[in-house]
Amino acid sequence: MEPPLRDLPQLLVINPPAFFNYGDPFAAKFAVLRAWESPLPLPGFLSAHAQSARALLCSGAARCRRRGMAVANAGEVFSDDVADEAVGLALAVLRRVSAADRFVRRGLWAEEGDFALGSKLAGKRVGIVGLGSIGLQVAKRLEAFGCPVSYNSRTKKPSVSYPFYANVNSQQTQTHHMIDKSVLLALGKDGILINVCRGAIIDEKELVQSLVRGEIRGAGLDVFENEPNVPEELLSLDNVILSPHVAVFTEESFQDLAELMIANLEAFFSNEPLITLVIDE
Amino acid sequence: MEPPLRDLPQLLVINPPAFFNYGDPFAAKFAVLRAWESPLPLPGFLSAHAQSARALLCSGAARCRRRGMAVANAGEVFSDDVADEAVGLALAVLRRVSAADRFVRRGLWAEEGDFALGSKLAGKRVGIVGLGSIGLQVAKRLEAFGCPVSYNSRTKKPSVSYPFYANVNSQQTQTHHMIDKSVLLALGKDGILINVCRGAIIDEKELVQSLVRGEIRGAGLDVFENEPNVPEELLSLDNVILSPHVAVFTEESFQDLAELMIANLEAFFSNEPLITLVIDE
Repeated sequence: MEPPLRDLPQLLVINPPAFFNYGDPFAAKFAVLRAWESPLPLPGFLSAHAQSARALLCSGAARCRRRGMAVANAGEVFSDDVADEAVGLALAVLRRVSAADRFVRRGLWAEEGDFALGSKLAGKRVGIVGLGSIGLQVAKRLEAFGCPVSYNSRTKKPSVSYPFYANVNSQQTQTHHMIDKSVLLALGKDGILINVCRGAIIDEKELVQSLVRGEIRGAGLDVFENEPNVPEELLSLDNVILSPHVAVFTEESFQDLAELMIANLEAFFSNEPLITLVIDE
Repeated sequence: MEPPLRDLPQLLVINPPAFFNYGDPFAAKFAVLRAWESPLPLPGFLSAHAQSARALLCSGAARCRRRGMAVANAGEVFSDDVADEAVGLALAVLRRVSAADRFVRRGLWAEEGDFALGSKLAGKRVGIVGLGSIGLQVAKRLEAFGCPVSYNSRTKKPSVSYPFYANVNSQQTQTHHMIDKSVLLALGKDGILINVCRGAIIDEKELVQSLVRGEIRGAGLDVFENEPNVPEELLSLDNVILSPHVAVFTEESFQDLAELMIANLEAFFSNEPLITLVIDE
């Protein structure tokens, strides 16, 4: 027999994570305090219902850490999926997968014949900006395509043999718009750009201009500066692949994430060490 | 100074290969006899202009071999590109790359919000039908995605450690329609099918039914039974990626192919061994 709800440990959820669309995986093991469903304003909800809650599901680990809370994150649950999407976007841009798909669906193969050639991935030089667990998975995959890999990150990784570049460009002092006009010019007309990180690392206006003018060959973009809005100029370009911020999301990774979160919560409520504890650098 | 045309060795071309659309790479080194441009019927053209030609550019190596001609083929020039396209199609089907691209271009991200989840490539079991130079390149790439690989081919490859299956299905006696209903049922509703080989190896009617009914998850198809015609039912499906028989073609591979063909022709006219001589099995 299931224990009654009030005996389950309380889990406060202020805003539902996206996977709640597919069912609440916590309901069987925790009393989920669903703040977003309450008619009360948040402070009212917290004082009325969440005084004794000891666990919180949220995004924004930094502020929790500053208040001394133990934080567990998603660990490397998403690394494979994001790396897969990055490679998928690179192949889709170079081999013009979506443009080819449109060409066939519109009946142009039979009408017009040859489809314009794409470009090779195998052997292309790849620079990875940020070589954490995702970047390393991208590198591993692209090595199998025969691509020489180099990388940029805050610090050189002693365990990695890929060539290290301290800056993406000579002006770089922060991540905001680190991919700016000078980087796009350096990529050049045979270069492509894949973004599965955050929209704001690219100067999107400059990118749009480069794509419209053919100053770079193409781009695969899963993230944008002002989501869900996408620059209108991109919507009709054949040299871009547009993706609605889904690089991290597959059925399998949602399942894996829910299991990891439950395991962390169970560890917490059993006074065991968290499985994916965030440690301040 | 270039030698006059009549001193160049003659190269007979009956039908132009697709890359002639991008310029004739042979013109500088060979006297190209362009049979397809002649008003004469082919036998007339051959007796009038090609009596002394000793080299022929064509498809259909088997008939040439039967007549005792030395045949050089494209070697492994296309293997990387076809393997890249196969992996690109697999990622595009699983991660719904083209459907996502349509979703964004139609403005549905801002209107409707979440896009339905795709499925993971990393770790999925992969069966490769035909483990020649292309299949081996596919295997190498998918291993880097953490996919366990097995294969089918006419004979077990002693140099390969992937598990070997003698038949794709128990009824298989030939390659025509070897991917039939029983194989599609075995793939099942989480399985996907990628074809970068020839259309006729799949029973296309059965495939269309499986896709329409969701009996398999999706398909990435570069080849079809009746090209350039594509079954109309596929044109509106979100779980397929359609591609106009371009897996082998990139700007780079066309260039590589032209160089290889010229090198073979130069070897032939210098009485040197052909570089990619076809040897009968």
